[in-house]
Amino acid sequence: MNTAAAHPAHAPGMDVVTVIGDGQLARMMQTAAIELGQSIRLLAGAEDSSAAQVCADVLIGDYTDYDDLLRAVEGASAVTFDHEHVPNEHLQALIDAGVNVQPVPSALVHAQDKLIMRTRLKEIGAPVPEFAEITSVDDAARFYELVDGAVCLKARRGGYDGHGVWFPKSAEELQETVTDLLAKDVPLMAERKLAFDRELSAMVARTPSGEVAPWPVVESVQSDGICVETIAPAPGLSPRLAGQAAEVAGQIATELGVTGDLAVELFQVGEEIFVNELAMRPHNTGHWTQDGSTTSQFEQHLRAVLDYPLGATDMTAPVTVMANTLGAATNPEMPVMDRVRGVLRRFPHAKIHLYGKEYRAGRKLGHVNVSGRDVEATRREAQLAAHYITDAVWADGFIES
Amino acid sequence: MNTAAAHPAHAPGMDVVTVIGDGQLARMMQTAAIELGQSIRLLAGAEDSSAAQVCADVLIGDYTDYDDLLRAVEGASAVTFDHEHVPNEHLQALIDAGVNVQPVPSALVHAQDKLIMRTRLKEIGAPVPEFAEITSVDDAARFYELVDGAVCLKARRGGYDGHGVWFPKSAEELQETVTDLLAKDVPLMAERKLAFDRELSAMVARTPSGEVAPWPVVESVQSDGICVETIAPAPGLSPRLAGQAAEVAGQIATELGVTGDLAVELFQVGEEIFVNELAMRPHNTGHWTQDGSTTSQFEQHLRAVLDYPLGATDMTAPVTVMANTLGAATNPEMPVMDRVRGVLRRFPHAKIHLYGKEYRAGRKLGHVNVSGRDVEATRREAQLAAHYITDAVWADGFIES
Repeated sequence: MNTAAAHPAHAPGMDVVTVIGDGQLARMMQTAAIELGQSIRLLAGAEDSSAAQVCADVLIGDYTDYDDLLRAVEGASAVTFDHEHVPNEHLQALIDAGVNVQPVPSALVHAQDKLIMRTRLKEIGAPVPEFAEITSVDDAARFYELVDGAVCLKARRGGYDGHGVWFPKSAEELQETVTDLLAKDVPLMAERKLAFDRELSAMVARTPSGEVAPWPVVESVQSDGICVETIAPAPGLSPRLAGQAAEVAGQIATELGVTGDLAVELFQVGEEIFVNELAMRPHNTGHWTQDGSTTSQFEQHLRAVLDYPLGATDMTAPVTVMANTLGAATNPEMPVMDRVRGVLRRFPHAKIHLYGKEYRAGRKLGHVNVSGRDVEATRREAQLAAHYITDAVWADGFIES
Repeated sequence: MNTAAAHPAHAPGMDVVTVIGDGQLARMMQTAAIELGQSIRLLAGAEDSSAAQVCADVLIGDYTDYDDLLRAVEGASAVTFDHEHVPNEHLQALIDAGVNVQPVPSALVHAQDKLIMRTRLKEIGAPVPEFAEITSVDDAARFYELVDGAVCLKARRGGYDGHGVWFPKSAEELQETVTDLLAKDVPLMAERKLAFDRELSAMVARTPSGEVAPWPVVESVQSDGICVETIAPAPGLSPRLAGQAAEVAGQIATELGVTGDLAVELFQVGEEIFVNELAMRPHNTGHWTQDGSTTSQFEQHLRAVLDYPLGATDMTAPVTVMANTLGAATNPEMPVMDRVRGVLRRFPHAKIHLYGKEYRAGRKLGHVNVSGRDVEATRREAQLAAHYITDAVWADGFIES
């Protein structure tokens, strides 16, 4: 622990929630905490990080250092996370010391290790693509044959936003990739590559007491493995499949003992769904809830980890579309503030959320939520707005009069 | 300036807005600022004040001290307020030094001095009750006669929440009160006491560029001069009167050069309205917008003082009711967090906003927003929720099963 960066003042008589991590998820938890009268203590890597910019009680430290964690949780009612990278042995040690960690490592491990996750989901009957552990080139060859070459190779741990995933085009390429990765001590698994129609996300929150609240299932549009857009509710999703997706998410939350938000990313193949990934925290596919649901995923996560009753998850508009603003290949000369002005001028009902981050190509810098009645019109507005913030041009050629 | 309490980290490339004042209005501006990617620098009286609890960049100082103000505004794109008590000569000096103060003192004076306000409103043709400056017992006697004894005596400056207002029951009582107050050097005015049907509030925001955006006119329910409830939109308000109220508010904003939020508190007498008070900042009667409008008054205030385009002000539900939680005569034993749990359990759609303040009888500690379809049902829920948070009992005798 280097420094205590700020003044540790908190609301009298209310809970203090320690959040480990300093990214946009922690930042947006703070907006929910402020309104609920809670306050957050942050264990941040840097004083100028996304979340540290907006919190009063910030400890600068290393989330892999047990002593730093111990100082960060002192006096907190609950401890939660904006990422999955805290070593589980430290979390277990905190729990053994009487700290209220939510979610617990025995749940978190399923968001950390893709093989453990799939093995467990299969056990509880949740739909997952065929998969196998890959510890040798032979394992890989066997799986390649089993799935007729439709192989998706994954690092068991540490992958995100398209990192740690490979789609070998031949048995030879698979063999080479596996040889290479095993030589680097990357634990691997493989699963059947599905020809899916689209990706969905089913989010729920669950409290330690066992209350579960699902949001409507959304469509998640990915580009290069990164979520670029979500459409709530998922257009044209059959009530049967919507019900099944929400049920699977609730089942996973309960069976795995998840607390707080759980995002279940799904592949839709015809009238079937398969679980792709899990995240046990607020998630990009839930950002739409800030402006489209009675209870946002950030408020719900805090309520859940504090074992408060969960909030209503109805939609407040027929459609809400979230579009991510990802740093363009080259940052345009127009100042970001002027791009924001441009969007707000053209779309007075667009809700812009920015994360306070320095520009970097491909980096998630913010998102835009637009609510409306018509799916395609709403999508178009959200896309145009997000694109203008990153590229400083209107993709539809709009010229302001 | 005593200390810089926190780490002054801000979002790169974005505006810093200095907010003078550390109450709940500044606190809730911070939630809007976070999402917009802005960040706030606070000039606060104490590290543990409502707003200082939730901001990173906090300077502890005295808003009546010019040097403290000067340090607080350094490098800020705009300076705004959560109260009207900064000396105008200091604000003028800041403006002369090139600081972007919003709203400017020539507008603010109308929210500070009730006589200047009424005189100006009369000039621009806005409806105000008959009024007079009271500098002597003779002035008072003359006005008493003019209005047939229906006198409301007011301190020109410093009144709020029912303070600084007197309703003398006789000519003698008026004379005594005036004598007493003038002896204490309290500048006075009197106006005709109206037998009004109810109170309304018309809120608008205005940018330095002159854009004006009104919210729907709300009914404001007062108890002992304190706003305890608002109902949006004002039930049964004729379209003509709603239009007139919004128009008057817009006219006042424009004619007086207001920037940021403007709350125009109104008396309704039959099919007539009269201006009662003005506030040039987010206002209690606009708290409902956090959960009932596409753009909250806190976001709109920031957008306005930064001269950003204003946001859409549509309602997101047919009815939204705000009920204040005022500290009960005696603070119940049940911890506040358990009262919050009780409300959230019974009303999963209620949105609780707490200010991080120590309990004090009659103090505004928070508010509850409830949205719904039916006015009376929604009011009842908001009232029950607010009452449970302050009194720890259900006013309707509800017993949890």
